[in-house]
Amino acid sequence: MSEQKSARHVYRFGVGVTDGRSSMKDLLGGKGANLAEMAFAGLPVPPGFTITTEVCAHVAGGAKGNTELTLPSWLWPEIDAAMAEVERTVDAKFGDADKPLLVSVRSGAAISMPGMMDTVLNLGLNDEVCEGLAKRTGKARFAWDAYRRFLQMFGDVVMGVPRSEFEHALDAVKEAKGAKTDQELDEAALRDVVNRFKAIYRKHTGHMFPESPREQLERSILAVFGSWNGDRARKYREVQKIRGLIGTAVNVQAMVFGNTGPRSGTGVLFTRNPATGTKELYGEYLVDAQGEDVVAGTRTPSPIAKLHEDMPVVHEQLVQLAARLESHFKNVQDVEFTVQDGRLYLLQTRHGKRTGAAAVRIAVDLVGEGLVTREEAVANLVEPAHVDQLLHPHFADETGYRKQGRVLSKGLAASPGAAVGRVVFHAEDAEAWRAKGERVILARVETSPEDVAGMHAAEGVLTSRGGMTSHAAVVARGWGKPCVAGCGDIIIDYRTKTLTNGRVTIKEGDWLSLNGTTGEVVEGKETLADAVVSGALETFMEWVDGMRALRVRTNADTPKDAAVARKFGAEGIGLCRTEHMFFEDSRILAMRRMILADDEKGRRAALALLLPEQRKDFAGIFRAMEGLPVTIRLLDPPLHEFLPNDAVQQDQVAKATGMHVERVRQRVNALHESNPMLGHRGCRLGITHPEITEMQARAIFEAACEVQAEGKKVLPEVMVPLVGTVAELVDQKKLVIAMAEQVFTEKGMRVPYHVGTMIEVPRAALVADKIAAEAEFFSFGTNDLTQMTLGYSRDDIASFVPRYLDRGILTDDPFQSIDTEGVGQLVRMACERGRATRKDLHLGICGEHGGDPRSITFFADVGLDYVSCSPFRVPVARLAAAQAALRGKVKAKQGEA
Amino acid sequence: MSEQKSARHVYRFGVGVTDGRSSMKDLLGGKGANLAEMAFAGLPVPPGFTITTEVCAHVAGGAKGNTELTLPSWLWPEIDAAMAEVERTVDAKFGDADKPLLVSVRSGAAISMPGMMDTVLNLGLNDEVCEGLAKRTGKARFAWDAYRRFLQMFGDVVMGVPRSEFEHALDAVKEAKGAKTDQELDEAALRDVVNRFKAIYRKHTGHMFPESPREQLERSILAVFGSWNGDRARKYREVQKIRGLIGTAVNVQAMVFGNTGPRSGTGVLFTRNPATGTKELYGEYLVDAQGEDVVAGTRTPSPIAKLHEDMPVVHEQLVQLAARLESHFKNVQDVEFTVQDGRLYLLQTRHGKRTGAAAVRIAVDLVGEGLVTREEAVANLVEPAHVDQLLHPHFADETGYRKQGRVLSKGLAASPGAAVGRVVFHAEDAEAWRAKGERVILARVETSPEDVAGMHAAEGVLTSRGGMTSHAAVVARGWGKPCVAGCGDIIIDYRTKTLTNGRVTIKEGDWLSLNGTTGEVVEGKETLADAVVSGALETFMEWVDGMRALRVRTNADTPKDAAVARKFGAEGIGLCRTEHMFFEDSRILAMRRMILADDEKGRRAALALLLPEQRKDFAGIFRAMEGLPVTIRLLDPPLHEFLPNDAVQQDQVAKATGMHVERVRQRVNALHESNPMLGHRGCRLGITHPEITEMQARAIFEAACEVQAEGKKVLPEVMVPLVGTVAELVDQKKLVIAMAEQVFTEKGMRVPYHVGTMIEVPRAALVADKIAAEAEFFSFGTNDLTQMTLGYSRDDIASFVPRYLDRGILTDDPFQSIDTEGVGQLVRMACERGRATRKDLHLGICGEHGGDPRSITFFADVGLDYVSCSPFRVPVARLAAAQAALRGKVKAKQGEA
Repeated sequence: MSEQKSARHVYRFGVGVTDGRSSMKDLLGGKGANLAEMAFAGLPVPPGFTITTEVCAHVAGGAKGNTELTLPSWLWPEIDAAMAEVERTVDAKFGDADKPLLVSVRSGAAISMPGMMDTVLNLGLNDEVCEGLAKRTGKARFAWDAYRRFLQMFGDVVMGVPRSEFEHALDAVKEAKGAKTDQELDEAALRDVVNRFKAIYRKHTGHMFPESPREQLERSILAVFGSWNGDRARKYREVQKIRGLIGTAVNVQAMVFGNTGPRSGTGVLFTRNPATGTKELYGEYLVDAQGEDVVAGTRTPSPIAKLHEDMPVVHEQLVQLAARLESHFKNVQDVEFTVQDGRLYLLQTRHGKRTGAAAVRIAVDLVGEGLVTREEAVANLVEPAHVDQLLHPHFADETGYRKQGRVLSKGLAASPGAAVGRVVFHAEDAEAWRAKGERVILARVETSPEDVAGMHAAEGVLTSRGGMTSHAAVVARGWGKPCVAGCGDIIIDYRTKTLTNGRVTIKEGDWLSLNGTTGEVVEGKETLADAVVSGALETFMEWVDGMRALRVRTNADTPKDAAVARKFGAEGIGLCRTEHMFFEDSRILAMRRMILADDEKGRRAALALLLPEQRKDFAGIFRAMEGLPVTIRLLDPPLHEFLPNDAVQQDQVAKATGMHVERVRQRVNALHESNPMLGHRGCRLGITHPEITEMQARAIFEAACEVQAEGKKVLPEVMVPLVGTVAELVDQKKLVIAMAEQVFTEKGMRVPYHVGTMIEVPRAALVADKIAAEAEFFSFGTNDLTQMTLGYSRDDIASFVPRYLDRGILTDDPFQSIDTEGVGQLVRMACERGRATRKDLHLGICGEHGGDPRSITFFADVGLDYVSCSPFRVPVARLAAAQAALRGKVKAKQGEA
Repeated sequence: MSEQKSARHVYRFGVGVTDGRSSMKDLLGGKGANLAEMAFAGLPVPPGFTITTEVCAHVAGGAKGNTELTLPSWLWPEIDAAMAEVERTVDAKFGDADKPLLVSVRSGAAISMPGMMDTVLNLGLNDEVCEGLAKRTGKARFAWDAYRRFLQMFGDVVMGVPRSEFEHALDAVKEAKGAKTDQELDEAALRDVVNRFKAIYRKHTGHMFPESPREQLERSILAVFGSWNGDRARKYREVQKIRGLIGTAVNVQAMVFGNTGPRSGTGVLFTRNPATGTKELYGEYLVDAQGEDVVAGTRTPSPIAKLHEDMPVVHEQLVQLAARLESHFKNVQDVEFTVQDGRLYLLQTRHGKRTGAAAVRIAVDLVGEGLVTREEAVANLVEPAHVDQLLHPHFADETGYRKQGRVLSKGLAASPGAAVGRVVFHAEDAEAWRAKGERVILARVETSPEDVAGMHAAEGVLTSRGGMTSHAAVVARGWGKPCVAGCGDIIIDYRTKTLTNGRVTIKEGDWLSLNGTTGEVVEGKETLADAVVSGALETFMEWVDGMRALRVRTNADTPKDAAVARKFGAEGIGLCRTEHMFFEDSRILAMRRMILADDEKGRRAALALLLPEQRKDFAGIFRAMEGLPVTIRLLDPPLHEFLPNDAVQQDQVAKATGMHVERVRQRVNALHESNPMLGHRGCRLGITHPEITEMQARAIFEAACEVQAEGKKVLPEVMVPLVGTVAELVDQKKLVIAMAEQVFTEKGMRVPYHVGTMIEVPRAALVADKIAAEAEFFSFGTNDLTQMTLGYSRDDIASFVPRYLDRGILTDDPFQSIDTEGVGQLVRMACERGRATRKDLHLGICGEHGGDPRSITFFADVGLDYVSCSPFRVPVARLAAAQAALRGKVKAKQGEA
């Protein structure tokens, strides 16, 4: 890039004029934009200027790591002019010994980003200036301390001299002087330190320390730009999925000093309590200190409330400034401040990070105080993750176990919340221990439908294999039960009933704690704290619901789950999987009889046993969802999932069914599939075994009639899975309609119902125009659609997807956040083609993506009618849907303008 | 349908005017159209008329099976008028006792279709007319014989009276008269038979036999229309994939009699020998007989040559008519004729079915004789299956084993040709027996890559599981080796080394014969006959090559296969799979070392052992394909395919590699995948193990340099498999290009090459515009694309696809013939989007569909540059490509007109 993008590359603030604003974060970085905004708002900000991110792109664009960078010549006049204005404003001069101006140099991208060069303070000092500073302030010790700090920071941060060298030298001087703290060093000692630091600098860089303030400045600016492409920053951007930024800005600002004596100090504060949301100043400060002292932890800061005693005027100023900041930024602010000789300066402000409970309370309070509108509160003040956090228990002490080194391993944060229990390794053990009143954690290599009862009995589930949409993860999320999945570092040995991370071995019965929100597996018994739910949440969610067009349904298979989801605001069931019902004790045997039967007659006999059970389940769900639609998916998984693989259980099945064990084994083998995900499942089962579809349809309509007879409104929707051709849907729909008519005749009543299909096979999306001629609704099964569109078996991706994410070949796990470019294209195509055929085609999505905020934004954009997600994700989805709608409004307005 | 579609519903022929032509098959059926054409051409056809297929659609449209049909009233005037013209032409009257006109009623759809009502002869007879016929002809016995035949046919065919009842009655009369044959029955006996037949008719139908000729005609016409929707006809259309026909026509034609004495007769003939193509009349005839007698087999017909002695004039007439027919229809004809009292009539003509050898010879001869143009010969006279048939050996006696009941079972005709050998059940045994000079058939439940050497050693392969694109089928077709796959009736027991169909058990070492063209598994040792290849084929294929735009490449993995394919006309290699190379003895160990290695260093060491082997293979292939492009696919299958699953072999691997067996087992378990088809394979391997891509790229470019240095032109194309995102291709392309440059530098020469990708993941088709920015060519992997687009694992579809085909949910196995609606849509999309980005993007297809004529038509239509198929399919594909081009030209012309 040889052209200059903007006319201006240096933006001034607090020098009479202020060029920037908070909306210019892309150009000025977050820190620079907010400094400008504060200065513009008349807040006490030391003057300075920001060099734009475009300059960074120009200077460091293609470069990596250690390339030698240079500043373009056209930049200097702008820097010099801005510096001159700063000098005029503070009545001092950069590099002038008489009236020395010292500056700080800080990086600042549009998104906060650790790993870049952070801060150089006191820049502009050299021997001569230092003497001048001492003279002018009358504080020689202060001046030499500032100098040695500058040398240390410049050497370490800008030039890469090992920090420990400086520390050793400082320690040596302290030891020689018998000083215990830095404070005890006098001017002479500090002069000694400065000399030693210069020697260290020279030894490591091969150059003299640059006495020229201009060279110091240039080197510091280039170091900031260079750090943008440093390994740590690149890695951070990769991990945090930060994309689309062109570089970091550089902020050069007049220094103010918190370490000039007892009337000085430095601190950080939140304008409200970030843990609870209470309206109170929250933070801490140190008297006679620079910012780094707060961070270093060598002195213990005081709580902000104490400032009232130490500096009552400053405290009062801060209270007023906090109100102005909130009013100006329409959000809680996280502020850095410095007091120099009784005068207060704000050095930085940003939106304050907060807990879920605080976020909701703050949002409601700020609306109440008239600071923000409800729309602004919903759009900006609460994140979907905040709501999620509110719904799950957490550890009472969220950091202690880390400090104590009790984290055994970290897996995927597959289902949020915290769980504590004694570890067991088999589903049956989980049930048995639970029955004895024990809290247990179930640890498995991976789980299968056979483990469901044991998973239910457990407080939490840990697996060493499988991804975010593995069986364990999906089932646990459905129940709101904490789960850490795919924890590959942990080896689980069923034989010895132990798990180990290679260092520590946990035996059956030992206590284990799982943090499903972070993925941490913690040795020992943590204390749990309940979720903090306030009335504020209810208020907030009412606003949310008023702002969204996208409905939110739930995936629920039992009356209990349905009731939970309804409590969380679900507006119907988008996916009721019927297969989980078949795994319960009494039913699995009938199911197995059905599968093992020699002919249709035998299958029908076994199905007759399942019919009353299914009817009972459906009736319970219809009651729980009274008045709301319930989408029931016909049997989906391949039949072999219902048969045991091990010889012992096969023997049991043989005994229970009275069949020869060899026959059972043969049948299991015959049902084996090379790629079950692409095998004999979904509507393929219903077509080869129409009696299954008929039984399920009968159970649905009999239950619907039963509940309707109780005076309750029932809205069943029968969903045919895995349709790829319209002929499949026609076949199954015919069976369903015939059965509906038969039942209605038998019962002497009619129930309104719909028949529709999953769109989860790529072909279905391609021929959606044809399928829509037969389907009254589409529900996108984005799990399968993702598997087939990308060709990724979600059970097998652990071997390559992490590497793909590392290398940026994928930006997200496509099973967590929908692949809008590929899978999304098929979703969009199916919607358009489907609606072209049937204008009122009802569209929803019931894959795991239905609970993912980023995916929800996409679904809202495509124009779906609803998303369906697990009960505990319903509130999250409601918020995400409202935020998507608000963003849509903003876009539409921009489009008009 | 209440409207009449065409103004005319009855088309006359041979009554002075003739309304129809052979081009009107859709409306008049094949038989009717050809009768009209013959009459129009002045050939001696008894006059008559055809009721159109539209009338059938009107009458039988929605009806099924046994519904009572009626003829619309508007039809009768047309029938009556046409009948009057027939009466005028032959000077006789329908239902008139003095000058009786008898007619035949025959069905005839646009495509020949067994299962429909076939023929009623002698219609118009009743007691009175029969007496009149006897009087007029002076042949009372003939008249009463005709009457009893009519009663039998009408009763059986039109009214569904059991045929056996008539036969029993006839036998009873013969017995009473002491007659051995029908001929020995005199008039009185036949009168007796007629009376008995009438009684039978009445008993079974509950009605008197209809004496009214008009009622006879109406019932017969309706029976023909009704049979269109009969179970047998529907089933036949389903099985034969006959679609898009609206119904059958009905042909009513004046009777002529071949059974009026020694100057009469009836016969069938081909205008050329359909087995060899020799220009000679070929067929047989019976003197004094009706057509049904030829079929019944009660009398032995004479060869047509003998007609020269029996009826020299008629023979000479037939010779001349044959020439006129061929000249008129531009094809060999299969003719039915009848001679009545020395006068010759043609009753039917159609294109004669022929063997592959005959088809090619006839095509070349007809061009030589100036009867057809080369284009016509290529478009119409040889089917792709004919060419295929020519390239494979067959059984010397193709029917004997069926008559002898030696067909054990019938599986999928997975790879054509015949094979004979002694059966073995393990790949190693096949190799060992072969080494001892035995011919063997390898029988397996299914095959895997480990069996490849044994498959190669075998004459043919039989599997009891797997479809047309199972491993066994694909590999066998690649070698042109006969294979019967998925023979589910046969149970293979490895333990006892036997196979059985439940009745017959075949032990190891027993002789077995496989007919890969029909799917038959034959007990015993059949005699083989070589493929008959004539110079005519060479001539014909030269014409073919001049008419096609679509190039034909081959899928070949060895220099030998490449040479075979080149001989068959391959214009390059479209798919060289590198993984087969890794299974050979010395290599598999290195491959396993690579997979089992702990780190990249270990992997690189093992790969270094494979490098010279791959280089040698590639060099051999480049030499064999000198001057032609060779597309090499980087490693595709998941690594676990290279490791053994059973404990014994794992022990061996442990010993050979010096690893602990437990470690080997762990590694095998770790590599296990739930859905390997959607797992860690294709470019995913190359991305997680860049050292594999590097080794393969090095082998390719070193081999290319080596062969180029010999003065041969080398055109390598490196193909990255299973790409779903452009980032994957970018990653692999970078490695390939870097290695190419490195090798070129080392060798001091450059070789032109291309890098492209497979399009086999649905997502790749969706983002083809982006991928084309990086890919120089696309090759559609339609096997995988079909698997993922439809969600069908080709190894697992046997459990539901047969049912889908039965029920018409699928019209074709999508792995045999491309699913144009779904998969085809993605192919078309990828072509359009790809070429939008890169105008000269080279497009090909290398899935199994590349050898399927119907699919080739689609690929030509989409505008691909080439198809690639197994060597033995290359000539088939060349012909299919030419036919597609010719059809395209016709379409284009029609478009212009």
